Amino acid sequence: MACLAIFFTVVAGLLSTLEAPAGVPSAIRLPAPGWEGNATLQKALQERKTVREFTGEPLAKEKLSGLLWAGFGINRPDTGHRTAPSAMNSQELDVYVALPEGVFVYDPKAGELRPVLGQDVRGKTTGAAFGTNSAAVLLFVADFSKQTKARPESKELYATFDAGCIVQNIYLYCASEKLGAVVYDLDRKAAGEALKLLPDQHVIMAQAVGVPK
Amino acid sequence: MACLAIFFTVVAGLLSTLEAPAGVPSAIRLPAPGWEGNATLQKALQERKTVREFTGEPLAKEKLSGLLWAGFGINRPDTGHRTAPSAMNSQELDVYVALPEGVFVYDPKAGELRPVLGQDVRGKTTGAAFGTNSAAVLLFVADFSKQTKARPESKELYATFDAGCIVQNIYLYCASEKLGAVVYDLDRKAAGEALKLLPDQHVIMAQAVGVPK
Repeated sequence: MACLAIFFTVVAGLLSTLEAPAGVPSAIRLPAPGWEGNATLQKALQERKTVREFTGEPLAKEKLSGLLWAGFGINRPDTGHRTAPSAMNSQELDVYVALPEGVFVYDPKAGELRPVLGQDVRGKTTGAAFGTNSAAVLLFVADFSKQTKARPESKELYATFDAGCIVQNIYLYCASEKLGAVVYDLDRKAAGEALKLLPDQHVIMAQAVGVPK
Repeated sequence: MACLAIFFTVVAGLLSTLEAPAGVPSAIRLPAPGWEGNATLQKALQERKTVREFTGEPLAKEKLSGLLWAGFGINRPDTGHRTAPSAMNSQELDVYVALPEGVFVYDPKAGELRPVLGQDVRGKTTGAAFGTNSAAVLLFVADFSKQTKARPESKELYATFDAGCIVQNIYLYCASEKLGAVVYDLDRKAAGEALKLLPDQHVIMAQAVGVPK
């Protein structure tokens, strides 16, 4: 069991340093986060709501960068601490970003989207129209192996709680910037297989974002 | 089983309309939410952090009102919708507020804190000093009976996710208003017994808030 865990850790380490395989799009460099609306927190909370109808328009890269930074960016570069808490600071969640051109992982340190998959999976995450009409579907993926201080039976709960914190930041960014967002559960196992996740990685929840109709 | 559920629903309904028992403090009328700092969302996200050291000073009622409204207030009075989402809009969470004078439930519609218990339980929720040094300990309590559309095995996960959304709102309010906050897990069963919860009610997580040292 221990050997297996070490094996997967080593494989995960190797994979993260490998170049993207053929057919996978290039990394996307993120510009500085965009704050066009720049509402007060009070105003953003007043405007916070669920939006399920999107125009299908893409987001400007500044907005995509802004909503990812708001969600789970680094707000204290000296320590690497983030805009949202994580239980025991395990930072076990990654934000996967499903765009029409493929799936990427948000790398807040490098300020880029690292490519994962050259497929449009947005519409596979939900039967509702907001999947394909969104500008992006965010998939919150926990790596249970990073939760070294949590009891095994608490890992999913903690990751789910932590995902809630990130999702709320993104709702508020969308409220500030006149974008729409909807959070939803999905077939986590199927989503994990589609993303070719490692055994310790688990899809926790999804959030579609876009330009409201 | 159905009879039992109806029995508890009836008992819960009766309890909520009864006067507070002897020894329990009076209801606290909440003033309009206070927004002294009134930071932008961007600034609040930049300042979002965990604070574990408090002075022990109480919060002004306007600030208490502000952080509760930010957390899970009603932002669309026509529909009763809230500042934070809940899975299938079940609004299954109540925010219990443990103050030195006792424990209260936040009633966002009435704009008041309804008394529950005439005891100071802040220090019982954690062995750390931030419990007794806080101005308030918030306890997020899910009522599983309100999650009528969720599968039984999903109720705790959804409530935990929803609690994360509320907690993040409160972190941001604290960042805006120069208050401190720390979220923590606790002995949920013991906390539930101390609060004399009904069988369908479950403590999900705790968050201490206060004036930072």
